[in-house]
Amino acid sequence: MLVGGALAASAAGLGTALTPALARSPQQGLPALAVGATRKVTIYAEALPGNLYGYGLAPGQATVPGPTLEMYEGDTLEVTLVNTTNQRLSIHPHGVDYSTESDGSPLHASFNNPGETRTYTWRSHEMTAAAGRRFMPGSAGYWHYHDHAMGTDHGTGGVARGLYGALTVRRRGDILPDKQFTVVFNDMQINNKVAPDTPMFEANLGQRVEWTAIGHGSLFHTFHLHAHRWADNRTGMLEGPADPSLVIDNKDLNPGSSFGFQVLAGEGVGAGAWMYHCHVQAHSDTGMAGLFLVRNADGSMPPGAQEAIDRFHGHAHDPAAAAAAQPHSHVHGG
Amino acid sequence: MLVGGALAASAAGLGTALTPALARSPQQGLPALAVGATRKVTIYAEALPGNLYGYGLAPGQATVPGPTLEMYEGDTLEVTLVNTTNQRLSIHPHGVDYSTESDGSPLHASFNNPGETRTYTWRSHEMTAAAGRRFMPGSAGYWHYHDHAMGTDHGTGGVARGLYGALTVRRRGDILPDKQFTVVFNDMQINNKVAPDTPMFEANLGQRVEWTAIGHGSLFHTFHLHAHRWADNRTGMLEGPADPSLVIDNKDLNPGSSFGFQVLAGEGVGAGAWMYHCHVQAHSDTGMAGLFLVRNADGSMPPGAQEAIDRFHGHAHDPAAAAAAQPHSHVHGG
Amino acid sequence: MLVGGALAASAAGLGTALTPALARSPQQGLPALAVGATRKVTIYAEALPGNLYGYGLAPGQATVPGPTLEMYEGDTLEVTLVNTTNQRLSIHPHGVDYSTESDGSPLHASFNNPGETRTYTWRSHEMTAAAGRRFMPGSAGYWHYHDHAMGTDHGTGGVARGLYGALTVRRRGDILPDKQFTVVFNDMQINNKVAPDTPMFEANLGQRVEWTAIGHGSLFHTFHLHAHRWADNRTGMLEGPADPSLVIDNKDLNPGSSFGFQVLAGEGVGAGAWMYHCHVQAHSDTGMAGLFLVRNADGSMPPGAQEAIDRFHGHAHDPAAAAAAQPHSHVHGG
Repeated sequence: MLVGGALAASAAGLGTALTPALARSPQQGLPALAVGATRKVTIYAEALPGNLYGYGLAPGQATVPGPTLEMYEGDTLEVTLVNTTNQRLSIHPHGVDYSTESDGSPLHASFNNPGETRTYTWRSHEMTAAAGRRFMPGSAGYWHYHDHAMGTDHGTGGVARGLYGALTVRRRGDILPDKQFTVVFNDMQINNKVAPDTPMFEANLGQRVEWTAIGHGSLFHTFHLHAHRWADNRTGMLEGPADPSLVIDNKDLNPGSSFGFQVLAGEGVGAGAWMYHCHVQAHSDTGMAGLFLVRNADGSMPPGAQEAIDRFHGHAHDPAAAAAAQPHSHVHGG
Repeated sequence: MLVGGALAASAAGLGTALTPALARSPQQGLPALAVGATRKVTIYAEALPGNLYGYGLAPGQATVPGPTLEMYEGDTLEVTLVNTTNQRLSIHPHGVDYSTESDGSPLHASFNNPGETRTYTWRSHEMTAAAGRRFMPGSAGYWHYHDHAMGTDHGTGGVARGLYGALTVRRRGDILPDKQFTVVFNDMQINNKVAPDTPMFEANLGQRVEWTAIGHGSLFHTFHLHAHRWADNRTGMLEGPADPSLVIDNKDLNPGSSFGFQVLAGEGVGAGAWMYHCHVQAHSDTGMAGLFLVRNADGSMPPGAQEAIDRFHGHAHDPAAAAAAQPHSHVHGG
Repeated sequence: MLVGGALAASAAGLGTALTPALARSPQQGLPALAVGATRKVTIYAEALPGNLYGYGLAPGQATVPGPTLEMYEGDTLEVTLVNTTNQRLSIHPHGVDYSTESDGSPLHASFNNPGETRTYTWRSHEMTAAAGRRFMPGSAGYWHYHDHAMGTDHGTGGVARGLYGALTVRRRGDILPDKQFTVVFNDMQINNKVAPDTPMFEANLGQRVEWTAIGHGSLFHTFHLHAHRWADNRTGMLEGPADPSLVIDNKDLNPGSSFGFQVLAGEGVGAGAWMYHCHVQAHSDTGMAGLFLVRNADGSMPPGAQEAIDRFHGHAHDPAAAAAAQPHSHVHGG
């Protein structure tokens, strides 16, 4: 399944990760820990045109971002990374459990030299009872993975050139989406592209869409989605009327952080070519913006959407105009 | 009612938004969806001295920030924007529901040309049951609105010059405040002012004060309020002893984000001229600071407050002193 | 007890703050407000080598960061600050209750002139019932304290040179840690040090470790800890299966903010020399990184840990290499 310009890992052997799981009622207490599955995936790190690098699930299929990898809490993922490039590189995950050999950092000599193949093991776990009537959290989250070895010991070169992707760990009972999108704010680019070449994500009205947003690089950003909002918690939804979570439509997206949420495409607002963008004005003005095309429920184009797309493609993301709009330049006042 | 230097919309036809609503018990489950009211408000965008622009509820009354607009979940607000300026501009809300024609962005040709009048429709909704024993969030939140068309397609010129304000959507049963303040961190300024000209907000000891903080521009900030703290959730209060929310007194306030909370003025600390400021040292040192004057319960001045105000007005917000305090300059050590 | 390079206040008269408290069940409702203790502590502000300043619990024992101070909700701490330096300075707390005389800011003439001794009083409180079936939050939190008077009226000089520390306010029933670490991201340094001289924190496998992370200065940062994750809420743990908190391993750490959490050292991942670092690539590459050495349960060194430490100490935190890794420089692609 093509999602966000990348092949989801579900298309390459992880399909069962998206099959519905047994629901569980919070009122019934925690179930016995599930016996997790162990899945194997081979990922190819490849050089791409434009001085980019990507991860892919088959030779010649690397993309930026790489494939979305998925697990249920309790699962183990054995990632065999094939380095087809002439650079030192690795794969380092957030959120999951790994021993030092799978850390993906030069600190632990955990990387692939040029041409090398190496297996990294990522485990996960469910929440567990702790002292004091509390629980140690499980692994569920909208996490991510990235290189930690190209260019510097922190993978600055690999991350800058596209070696990153989404890693989703679900809790049993979580609602599964119809569509998944990955948005990476990486220095002044989105998925290493600038408007109008940024991804146009598409869904039909009412489809359940899962966004994973990831920050990289050395700049600060805020992710804004027009006409949709979500709870700032683990799922983007509320657990009930007493759930105190903030509801937001704009969130800090800084290097190494990630978050995710589900929305119903066009819920309460209708179909249309909605914008997503960095809300830092100097960033949106110079190209950190893209479109979320919500089609009609039958997949047809809604009125006005093509015109908006055409405007976007003619968009003058013009640094000079952006600079002129700053406070100390002159606007002819009314 | 004059709040934060701006006329609240309640003074111009939205007064019922602040009348107490029926309380509802979370334990009783969700009530039937309320039939929302539709209210109309006319807003005038005007040029102001000092190369600023503002929104106002009547001709000649534009302010920076603009009026605080309020809704209950389920309400609709029809905003008729009169553009009295010679600039293209618009009004774009966060958090609420709008169709593409009311998006306020040039992407959808949704703006006012110079001299034009245009109506934007903002709807809102209560939380609704979703699959999996969860709820899709309602519209309640401390949101904001701003221009999305002046200067650039993202409204960088309009935002920089003052075209912004607070938009509060309440859930039925929410506690209503005695006072409301709006603080906008916009590049290196607060409400487009620099200390000592930043707003001095005033309340009497024990009054319930509602703060809405909004970030704009292209810089990162942190909002700090002395001697008061709040839960980092939807209301600033805790839902009960098991509410896991962080309690904070300093929060990131970056472009496009907003948050709000209620405090009891001087609770546990007493009356006085308390500071609020950006905690980024280079920003507070150069003027991103203001005063929250908590008077005695009877409205009289507490001891020491006038002296503090006088010091603040004599405050040397001196870039040279700020630079000299940086780590690599010399301080004569003890 | 030496924690994070600093003497914990528990070693100097506050020891009872770490004795177990009576547990309380959220289901049983709130207990009567506890009668808080009043404790006195004397802190010495001293000049240190390298143009640094520190707070200490005895003459000649100042450290950067200063001692970790602890209270239970309801307690009062009387901090007598002895200024042994020739600079104006103060101590300003976050999160707790203080009157204007104890604010620590020049705005209230609340500081120590060179050579002066002055007492600052910090109070705290439990949560209290509010209107509308909500609660005003108590003082519990991973807070901090810092100078607010050296160099500028916001203490920019004192903060830059090391005048800061952690302040932990516990709720009765909170789980107590085995170890406490304080990490301060202060401009481009950690605890005013750069790798490989940043602190190496140590614990044995399975020990309950409490981290307090504090941001200072004028730059933005993100704190990342390898192979450990925590709930983004008050305790870092979940209150139960319906707790909606995000689970994270990377969090914004910006000036004036702080957060804390407890992890079990090496839980699910094993012993090893794990990295913590700022995830802003340009910051980690130039030295904002350190080690969290998780020893075996018996305190012995795990395989590979010494090699990792040696690599870290030979770490080329090389600005030139970091710059070369940026996107527009050349990497010889595969």
